[in-house]
Amino acid sequence: VTHSSNNAQGDAAPVKKVGIIGGGQLGLLLCQAGRRIGLHTTVLTDDATSPAVHSADDVLVAQLDDSAAVTTLIQQCDVVTFELEAIPDVTLDKLQTAIDQALVMTHPSVEVMTCIKDKGLQKTWLSDARLPTLPFALIDAKTQADSGGVGGIDLPLVQKARQGGYDGKGVQILRTAEELEELWPVPSVIEPALHNCVEVAVVVARDVDGMISAYPPVTMEFDPQLNAVSTVISPGLLAPEVQKSCRTIASEAVNALGSVGVFAVELFLTQDGELYINEISPRVHNSGHLTIDGFAHDQFEQHMRAVSGHPVAAIESRAPAAVMLNLLYDDSMVAAHTGAPYALALDEHVTLHWYGKPEARPGRKMGHINALGDSTEAALERARAGLAKIQSGDLNPPKAETQAVAS
Amino acid sequence: VTHSSNNAQGDAAPVKKVGIIGGGQLGLLLCQAGRRIGLHTTVLTDDATSPAVHSADDVLVAQLDDSAAVTTLIQQCDVVTFELEAIPDVTLDKLQTAIDQALVMTHPSVEVMTCIKDKGLQKTWLSDARLPTLPFALIDAKTQADSGGVGGIDLPLVQKARQGGYDGKGVQILRTAEELEELWPVPSVIEPALHNCVEVAVVVARDVDGMISAYPPVTMEFDPQLNAVSTVISPGLLAPEVQKSCRTIASEAVNALGSVGVFAVELFLTQDGELYINEISPRVHNSGHLTIDGFAHDQFEQHMRAVSGHPVAAIESRAPAAVMLNLLYDDSMVAAHTGAPYALALDEHVTLHWYGKPEARPGRKMGHINALGDSTEAALERARAGLAKIQSGDLNPPKAETQAVAS
Repeated sequence: VTHSSNNAQGDAAPVKKVGIIGGGQLGLLLCQAGRRIGLHTTVLTDDATSPAVHSADDVLVAQLDDSAAVTTLIQQCDVVTFELEAIPDVTLDKLQTAIDQALVMTHPSVEVMTCIKDKGLQKTWLSDARLPTLPFALIDAKTQADSGGVGGIDLPLVQKARQGGYDGKGVQILRTAEELEELWPVPSVIEPALHNCVEVAVVVARDVDGMISAYPPVTMEFDPQLNAVSTVISPGLLAPEVQKSCRTIASEAVNALGSVGVFAVELFLTQDGELYINEISPRVHNSGHLTIDGFAHDQFEQHMRAVSGHPVAAIESRAPAAVMLNLLYDDSMVAAHTGAPYALALDEHVTLHWYGKPEARPGRKMGHINALGDSTEAALERARAGLAKIQSGDLNPPKAETQAVAS
Repeated sequence: VTHSSNNAQGDAAPVKKVGIIGGGQLGLLLCQAGRRIGLHTTVLTDDATSPAVHSADDVLVAQLDDSAAVTTLIQQCDVVTFELEAIPDVTLDKLQTAIDQALVMTHPSVEVMTCIKDKGLQKTWLSDARLPTLPFALIDAKTQADSGGVGGIDLPLVQKARQGGYDGKGVQILRTAEELEELWPVPSVIEPALHNCVEVAVVVARDVDGMISAYPPVTMEFDPQLNAVSTVISPGLLAPEVQKSCRTIASEAVNALGSVGVFAVELFLTQDGELYINEISPRVHNSGHLTIDGFAHDQFEQHMRAVSGHPVAAIESRAPAAVMLNLLYDDSMVAAHTGAPYALALDEHVTLHWYGKPEARPGRKMGHINALGDSTEAALERARAGLAKIQSGDLNPPKAETQAVAS
């Protein structure tokens, strides 16, 4: 298996009809970008109330492994792309058969989607491609811990289930011999747990000609209770040379994958300045949401440009610093849940993006706030003021202050 | 007839379903704004290929005086608004009947739409409301010129047909006794022609509570051949105190109308600093297109907020200066006509907005370019560079400059 060649359809003319498997907020924002650039979108989702339903041109509601629905998607679209990793194998197989018959394209390729959705295959590929990544062991469901670790990896260690994890699910840290008893009996990747590293992400777009645009790296802060990203900062507090290294490594990884679209490369930055690729998402990503307001061309437009055969755009920022706050649902967001618009500029620097999910659950990603500033501090302050406004239930932009008197 | 009271439905809760009569680029951009803020739009258009068809949630294709279609629009919508003045009388009558039966609302009111679409009624209203406007005479189809003028207005003078004019159509300047023979035999407004005045427009939003937001005034340059606006500059070269006077007069006029939505107030600014209201458009307007990129809340969002019962937003600019160039079709735009996306950021300061009209005709408004800058000069320079790029057939954003080498 090699991932280093360009997609065979790379020289084809741009296409119009884009199918998207998955209907969440990433699909919503992909469809909005597609509409701006004149593409026609068809979303396959298993939930008729999912956010993308509101922005797609056409919607197919069916399980993601529904054969008839996937057939319809292939018939209706020139190219199919993905807003989540967990695409059922049967669907990937069906897409590959259609590709082989020249009925459709996919970006990224089925090969890359298959590799990335299994964290074991992905890790093996990273290692084989000589990209910087932590040492690891692959274990099966029957593997037992030994006294000091698992599969040759010493404590403290991280266990990542090979299949199905996201947003912190399917990942656990085991620190002590006692905790080793909690090892899940599932096929997993075992890695050393790093101490006090910074989590960095680089969103990279690659087009059919192999040209690459990498956004500045962002640093991510996590909500300790929810184990979900709470704050994303661009370009963060990283020194320029570290920023450059992050972009270079991420670009090399995406180039090595050899596929087309937007990819998010998550990196560990250690205290002594080493960079390791944690994992790659073959899609637009939460860490790239601040590109909506922070850059001339956001990750969603870049992805839609790339998968439809257009060149990706250069990276042009609209402000020196940008910050995103995820809106993880809690009781303070009742007003937003019942009344927020999809997009609301709170002022010229701060925008609320709300996904319109009908069901609110504690900790669920319901939207995000983007803020721009001349410094990270200024952007953060504005973002937090925006959050306070949302939490206070005020879902209006600043009101007009003048009321003319009738003459 | 009085227009100075709030709409009787002013205290109603916000509504969701907005009908728009007219399907041009103004409708396209209104529907896009409606989508962002979670409204449902239904467009009534006589052309199934008109721009708004691509962004409306529902489309009714019928003549604008089609009784069944207007009935359907009333049934499907909470409020009806307009993207053009020339609404047939029979349609306005039908809407008023539905309003009287509490079946629907309209913003602006039928009363205001009826007044404004007839330049004679509008001019009489301006005068009666003691708003600053030029002296005028109303003439009928049989009126003859006298030796020095028409209806008591001396040469040079302007004749404006009372019905149906737009974009310079239905308006002529008569300068000499000889030219007086060209007087059209149609009911008209006759005004003195001003020498070397500056044409200024102020876009004003008024909500159901009577709160008003007025954008900074723009100055307009006209294409001498096409007699259409070619360039709009905000806030132009007007002194701050003149800007203030323009906003005050425009706000007073919109407040006096007492209706809800966005209105464009066109003003003449004479060499000696006098301001006269030329005319009022009861809708979003070409002179407000630079608000899309130049302000946190553009005229389209303000209109949709206002007509759906939300408060209008304060005016917050994103840059000190903004410029818009209308793209009036000529042979240099063939590439754009065949390939431009609806929205394309040429860089972080310049955006192409293309309306996707299937038929290009010389002089037809096909799109516009917005540019921002720290000064009018900087914004103009960027806008013109953007225009040159479009005319060269380059419809891509700046391309990525890096191509990572496979590791």
